[in-house]
Amino acid sequence: MTTLYNDPSTFMEDQLAGFLDAYADRLRGVEGGVVSTAPQDSPEVAVVVGGGSGHYPAFSGLVGPGLAHGAVVGNIFTSPSASRACTVGRAADAGRGVIFTFGNYAGDVMNFGLATQRLAAEGIDARVVVVTDDIASADEPEKRRGIAGDFTVFKVLGAAAAEGLDIDAVEAAGQHANAMTRTLGVAFSGCTMPGSEEPLFEVPEGHLGLGLGIHGEPGIEDVPMLSADQLAELFVERVLTEAPEGAGRRVAAILNGLGTTKYEELFLVWGRVSALLRDRGYEVVQPEIGELVTSLDMGGCSLTLMWLDEDLERWWTADAYTPAFKRVASALPVGTADHTAVETTSAATEIPAAGEAGRALAGQVRAVVSDLAVLLEEKSGELGRIDAVAGDGDHGRGMLRGITAAQAAIAEVPDHAGAAAVLRAGGRAWADDAGGTSGVLWGADQEAAAGTLDDAAASYAAEDAVAAVQAFQDSMQQLGRAQVGDKTLLDSLVPFVDALSAAVAGGASLADAWSSASAEAAKAAEATQDLRPAVGRARPLAEKSLGTPDAGAVSMAMILGRIAEHLR
Amino acid sequence: MTTLYNDPSTFMEDQLAGFLDAYADRLRGVEGGVVSTAPQDSPEVAVVVGGGSGHYPAFSGLVGPGLAHGAVVGNIFTSPSASRACTVGRAADAGRGVIFTFGNYAGDVMNFGLATQRLAAEGIDARVVVVTDDIASADEPEKRRGIAGDFTVFKVLGAAAAEGLDIDAVEAAGQHANAMTRTLGVAFSGCTMPGSEEPLFEVPEGHLGLGLGIHGEPGIEDVPMLSADQLAELFVERVLTEAPEGAGRRVAAILNGLGTTKYEELFLVWGRVSALLRDRGYEVVQPEIGELVTSLDMGGCSLTLMWLDEDLERWWTADAYTPAFKRVASALPVGTADHTAVETTSAATEIPAAGEAGRALAGQVRAVVSDLAVLLEEKSGELGRIDAVAGDGDHGRGMLRGITAAQAAIAEVPDHAGAAAVLRAGGRAWADDAGGTSGVLWGADQEAAAGTLDDAAASYAAEDAVAAVQAFQDSMQQLGRAQVGDKTLLDSLVPFVDALSAAVAGGASLADAWSSASAEAAKAAEATQDLRPAVGRARPLAEKSLGTPDAGAVSMAMILGRIAEHLR
Repeated sequence: MTTLYNDPSTFMEDQLAGFLDAYADRLRGVEGGVVSTAPQDSPEVAVVVGGGSGHYPAFSGLVGPGLAHGAVVGNIFTSPSASRACTVGRAADAGRGVIFTFGNYAGDVMNFGLATQRLAAEGIDARVVVVTDDIASADEPEKRRGIAGDFTVFKVLGAAAAEGLDIDAVEAAGQHANAMTRTLGVAFSGCTMPGSEEPLFEVPEGHLGLGLGIHGEPGIEDVPMLSADQLAELFVERVLTEAPEGAGRRVAAILNGLGTTKYEELFLVWGRVSALLRDRGYEVVQPEIGELVTSLDMGGCSLTLMWLDEDLERWWTADAYTPAFKRVASALPVGTADHTAVETTSAATEIPAAGEAGRALAGQVRAVVSDLAVLLEEKSGELGRIDAVAGDGDHGRGMLRGITAAQAAIAEVPDHAGAAAVLRAGGRAWADDAGGTSGVLWGADQEAAAGTLDDAAASYAAEDAVAAVQAFQDSMQQLGRAQVGDKTLLDSLVPFVDALSAAVAGGASLADAWSSASAEAAKAAEATQDLRPAVGRARPLAEKSLGTPDAGAVSMAMILGRIAEHLR
Repeated sequence: MTTLYNDPSTFMEDQLAGFLDAYADRLRGVEGGVVSTAPQDSPEVAVVVGGGSGHYPAFSGLVGPGLAHGAVVGNIFTSPSASRACTVGRAADAGRGVIFTFGNYAGDVMNFGLATQRLAAEGIDARVVVVTDDIASADEPEKRRGIAGDFTVFKVLGAAAAEGLDIDAVEAAGQHANAMTRTLGVAFSGCTMPGSEEPLFEVPEGHLGLGLGIHGEPGIEDVPMLSADQLAELFVERVLTEAPEGAGRRVAAILNGLGTTKYEELFLVWGRVSALLRDRGYEVVQPEIGELVTSLDMGGCSLTLMWLDEDLERWWTADAYTPAFKRVASALPVGTADHTAVETTSAATEIPAAGEAGRALAGQVRAVVSDLAVLLEEKSGELGRIDAVAGDGDHGRGMLRGITAAQAAIAEVPDHAGAAAVLRAGGRAWADDAGGTSGVLWGADQEAAAGTLDDAAASYAAEDAVAAVQAFQDSMQQLGRAQVGDKTLLDSLVPFVDALSAAVAGGASLADAWSSASAEAAKAAEATQDLRPAVGRARPLAEKSLGTPDAGAVSMAMILGRIAEHLR
C-alpha cells in the first residue's frame, strides 16, 4: 500500500516538489507540471505528455531530450485540468506548436481538448494524440484505453520532434505509432491511494484480472492464476491476434510492471515471451523490461508490441535522456571485448588411481552419499518447517540441493579414485549448487575432511575417521565463526566429535563409537530448542524460536545417525 | 507477493535467462552469472559485483561500461558459491586482476573469500571490497551489513577501474568509498519468496521496522508509522550522526525503494530530506531516487549518503551505462533553453463593469457559492461513501475541492462585475483545481451557463434562469457524452431542467418552479440506485452498485435543493 505521505490531499504537489528538487539541473516546475530546460539545437515541436499522478515514470519522468518537452501532472489517477495543460503547453512551446499526448480517458480527453482550443485562441497550434493500445478495453480501436503503450507513442513523438519535423508530421508519426501499438495487461492485486485504508479494488485470491487497466477499470474476466510461462503464452497469443493489418515481423516490445510485480518476475516472463515471438518469426528490437507506466503499488504487468516500419524503428531506437528513460547509443561501444571472447575454465585435475583400501573406502562414501540423498529428500519438508520459525525456511531445500549435486558429481568421478577424491568432488559440487552460507560450509568442510585422508594408504583405522571429522569441525568453526551454544549445527557436531574421539581413544570400535556419539548428537540437537539463536540469523523472532530446535543441528544429527547405520 | 514463476527451485536460472535475452547486445552469460561484452579502450581491473538474487538491479543490472564488469548471481537471498564467483571472475578478468565487491553477509564473505584464494592459485590477482554501510546493523563499522550503499561503493569501483587505475588503487578507492558511506533503512512490509504462501517476515500493522535489512534481518525496533516528513527527519538525523570524522559538506545521496514503496512516495520523502540537508549546510551531488537495491516485493526505503572528496565526487559523477543505471553527461546539454526562460501567461482579461441588475445577481451567485461550500464540506464524507461502492470514493473530495477553488476565485473578482463574470471565474477555478472528469464538467458547464447571461441587462426574468440551466445541461451532455439512465449526474439534472422549464412556461415564479423541479431531481437521484452504472466507470462492481444511488446524481440534486432555498 501507499504508506508514505504527509497530507494526502497535497500528495501530488508534495511529490512533485521532491521530484523537481532531484532534477533541478534539467527540469523546471511550472503551474501544472514540469518542462525540460535542455536547450534545443533548433526549435522543436513541443511534445507534452500528461495525465493523473501515480503512474511514475509516466508522466514527469519521461521529460528530457529526445522524449517529452513537458508533462502535465494531475492529482492521483485524476486528469489535470485544461488550465494546467495550457500553462505547461505555453511553457514548452518553442514556436512550432504543441502536441498533447495521453491515454484515452474521458477526463483527459476533455481537459486536453479544451486546452488545445484555448491555446489556439492564443495563436499556439495545439493538437492531441490519444493513445488507445489496450486491446482488452473495447473492440473498437478508438474506444480503447491507453496503458503501457503510452510509452511507445510518446517515444515516437519525442524522436520525431527531435528530428525537426513540423507539427503535421510529428502528429502523423504519433498517430501512426498508436495505430501500430497493442497491449494486454493483467493485475494480481489492487493499489491503495495515499491515506486510504483499503485498496481501490481487489482481485480474488489465487486469480488474476485479465485486461484490468491501470486504475482497476473493468477487465475481461478474473481467471485462475497462471505460471510465468502460461502468462507469456497468453500475452503473445492475444496480442498477436490483434496485429495491425499488413504489419511486418519487426516489433518493439515492452514488458511493463505495474508496481509490485518486480524485475526478476518480469525477466522470467520476458524469457518465454521472447522465445515465443522468435518461434513465430518475429524479431524484437530493443525490448524494455521494467516499470514505465505504473499504478501505485498495484501488482500486475502487461505486454506491449509496436509493429515497426523503417520510420518507427528509427524513432524507437533514437537516443533519449530523461530522469527515468535513457538511451544513448554512443555510450555502448560496439563490438565484443577480446578478452571475453574465449571462455577460460579452471584446468581439470587428473584424479590419480587410489590403492585398494582407498577404492573400498570410496565405495562406502558413495553408498553413504546415495543414502543421505534419500534421507534428505524424505526430511526436506520437516527441516523446512523447523527452519521457518527462526530462519527463512529453506534449510531442507538447501541441504537437498547440496546432497543431490554431490551425488551427481561423485557419479562422474572415475572408479579408480579413492575416498578423498570422491569426498572432494562431492564437497565442491555441494558448495557450488547449494550456495549460501550452509552450502559453502558443508562443501568446504567435506573438502577439509578429504584433506586428512590418504588415498594411497594400505589400510584405514578408526583414528583416521576421528581425524577426518575433526578437520570437518575445524573448518566449520573457522569459516562460520560460530560457537557452541549459538544455535547452529555446531551444537550437535561438537558433542559428536568429542564423544567419537573419546570412545575411539578408549578402544571402542568405530561402529560402536560412531553409534554412541551420534546418539549424543541427537540429544544435543534436541536441546538447542532452549538456546537463543545466534545474532545475525535471518530473522530475529527470538521469542518464537525458543522451544524449537535448530534446523542445522537437527539435520547434522540425522546425517550422523544415518552414517552410523552404514558402519554396523 | 512474488506471483510469477514456473518451478520455484529454478527461479534464479529462469529469470537470468530472460535478463540475458533482453541484454544480449551488451552482456553474456557465463556459468554463475553475467559479464559485459563491451570492448575496453585499454584493459581495466575487473569489478565483479554479486550476491543473492531478488535485489535487482543489484547485481546483474549494474554491469556495463563505467560500472561493474561482471555479476555473480546466487539463488534468491542466497550467496552464490565460490565456484560461480570464480567462473565470473575468470571471464571478467582482462589481465589486471579482479575485485569482488558485495554486501557484508556471512555466506558472501566466505564464498567470495574462497574464490579469491582459488583465483590466486591460478595466477589471477583477486581482492574483496566488502560493503558495510548499514548503521543500524551493528555499532562496530566492520560488522555492519551492506544494503543500498552497495551502489555507491560499486559506482566508485567501476569509475576508478574505468580510469585505468591499477588493482591496488581501485581497491583503495572502493575501501575509501565504503568508509565514507552510511545508510539507514526502514521496512513497512515483508517480501514473499517465489512459491511461498507467507511473507518471509512481517512488520506489525501500523508500524515500521527501523533498521531492518534487505532480507528481514534484525533491525533496531518496530516503531509506530511515521509521516513522510517525519521519516525524512529521522533518516537525516541518524545518518548525519554517523558522519565520518573530518568529512566535508558535499555528499552523494540515494533514496532507495525496496520494491513496493513507489516512486511518488520516494520523491515526497526526498523533498524533505533535501531541504533538511540544505538547512544543515550540505550540498547534494546528483542524488538518485529510485530502486537500486531491492528486496523482492518488500515495502520500505533507505537513505544513503556518501561524503565526497574530489576523487569520490569525480567517480560518483562519472559516466556509466548499464541496463539499470545510466549516466551520460554529454546527453544532457548544458545551459537553459531560451524559449522557456520567460514564463508566458495568458493575458488577464479586464472585467467590465456590469449594470445594477447584473451586480445584484452577482451578489446572489456569490452567496449561493459560499453556502454550497458549507454544504459540500458537510456532505463530503457521505458522498465519498456512496461513490466508493462503484467508483474510487473521491466524489465528495473532488466536489469540495472544486467549490472551494470557485469560492476563492470569486472573491478575487471585482465588485463591479456581473453574475456572468463571477460564474465564469468560479467555473474556471473549479475545473483547474478539481481536475479530472467531474472537475472539467462542472467548470465548463458553469462557463456555458455564464455565456447565456448578459451582465449589462437592465433586469432578469425566470426565463433567463431556464436558459442558463439549459446551457449548463447542454454543455454537460456534449462534453461528457453520457445519456440519461447511465447512472450519472444527468439522471437528476435532466428531470430538473425539464420540470423547471415546464413550470416557468406555465407561469410559475422562479422560486416555486425551482423548488418543485429540485424535488423532482432528488427523487430521480434516489432512483439511480436501480440503474446499472455507465460503461467506463472507475470500477465495474456492477452487482454491488445496484442498490446504491449515483454519487454525482445525489450531489447535483443536493446542490439544486440548496439553491432553491436561496430563491425563496
